[in-house]
Amino acid sequence: MKDTTTLYQHGTLALLVPGLLAGTLTMAELLRHGDTGIGTGEGLDGELIILDGHPYQVNAQGEVHEVAGDFTLPFANSHYADYQPLMTVLGASQADLNQQIRALAQLDNAFFSVKITGLFTAIRTRAVAKSEPPYQTLAQAAQQQQIFSRGEVEGTLIGYYAPQLYDGIAVAGFHKHFLAADHSFGGHLLDFESVTGEVAVQPFSTLAQHLPIADAAYRQHDFSGDDIVGDVRRAEH
Amino acid sequence: MKDTTTLYQHGTLALLVPGLLAGTLTMAELLRHGDTGIGTGEGLDGELIILDGHPYQVNAQGEVHEVAGDFTLPFANSHYADYQPLMTVLGASQADLNQQIRALAQLDNAFFSVKITGLFTAIRTRAVAKSEPPYQTLAQAAQQQQIFSRGEVEGTLIGYYAPQLYDGIAVAGFHKHFLAADHSFGGHLLDFESVTGEVAVQPFSTLAQHLPIADAAYRQHDFSGDDIVGDVRRAEH
Repeated sequence: MKDTTTLYQHGTLALLVPGLLAGTLTMAELLRHGDTGIGTGEGLDGELIILDGHPYQVNAQGEVHEVAGDFTLPFANSHYADYQPLMTVLGASQADLNQQIRALAQLDNAFFSVKITGLFTAIRTRAVAKSEPPYQTLAQAAQQQQIFSRGEVEGTLIGYYAPQLYDGIAVAGFHKHFLAADHSFGGHLLDFESVTGEVAVQPFSTLAQHLPIADAAYRQHDFSGDDIVGDVRRAEH
Repeated sequence: MKDTTTLYQHGTLALLVPGLLAGTLTMAELLRHGDTGIGTGEGLDGELIILDGHPYQVNAQGEVHEVAGDFTLPFANSHYADYQPLMTVLGASQADLNQQIRALAQLDNAFFSVKITGLFTAIRTRAVAKSEPPYQTLAQAAQQQQIFSRGEVEGTLIGYYAPQLYDGIAVAGFHKHFLAADHSFGGHLLDFESVTGEVAVQPFSTLAQHLPIADAAYRQHDFSGDDIVGDVRRAEH
């Protein structure tokens, strides 16, 4: 039976900060821990979103492709979907939506996922272009991100919420990726004006935090000089 | 087959800080995730150490008893032992030992466990007395700890190392509990002068972080006013 109470995470946001961007997990392995998720490829190669077991990549040209099992990732989340309906929203702003989800779900101190399907207006996403070794830092890579926008688009948003205590391990608060229903648009969600659709949530009792401990660069890195929380905040929000 | 690459953790050090001390996991459940571990009971009821599947409690009187499956805990770690020999030490100081383990194991960015069996000199441990609801904060409870010492004692030390990024979630660096071979002494390790014996380590690729999300006090607590890292450092080191 599939475990729907565990959120799997490979890597940390912190390891992206100094540019530990080697792909240390395959998509095939990530999919052994869930059918739904988000992530990024080796060298920050685009923005990934997994829906119903299908892993889609939005690359720096804004194109959406399904990736193969041997695609590798430095950071990703996955879980087995078992979302429960939370509410229907009609033209909700992003700030109102976040506030309503937190007020209704009462899960501020838990990990949970949110899935929103519907019509989004004035939506902006970004995707980072793949860098090659020696890898750039997260701050440098984020400067070369491409931003995409749509006036109106139907699609699915997958987000993960992490409690404040886990800032730097994950993105504290919400970390959201988006995919258009027709696969013509997607990426890491920057913002939107309004959404009309269905909001569902899935709480987790366990975070399975997997670390790339066989990777020499990760093992040997001294994180004490990195501004983990500051750089994550600037790059991911 | 038992998973020897995962460290299970119930709760966080952070939740002890404001006194969220309800026992939210039974020992029976903790033992489903390992045969080796450390923890504390409801209300900070003593110091727990699990060896070969047997959970021992050192209470505030310094007595050692095996606890039953329905004993509950607000915070604990467990894993299935698969230690690999690292080194033999002869009269090593605690500081030298920590430094040698880190230099040899090269696991600064991983979770790992250390097991040391041997003869310890001038060793000091502590145990906290159980508090009842409304629970004290960690800082208040730590003031009422009892300290125990022995000039020389044979026994086993079980420690867990957490990377700096996880400070407040776990104890960053080492968190060690001790049990004398004859069960006459033990507790949370404060310090020792020297140890002669065998040192073994077990690295983990995954931290399974379980949170008490069904507990109303945990769900509703606002952690933003707590000095998590400061209070954990003062209480646990």
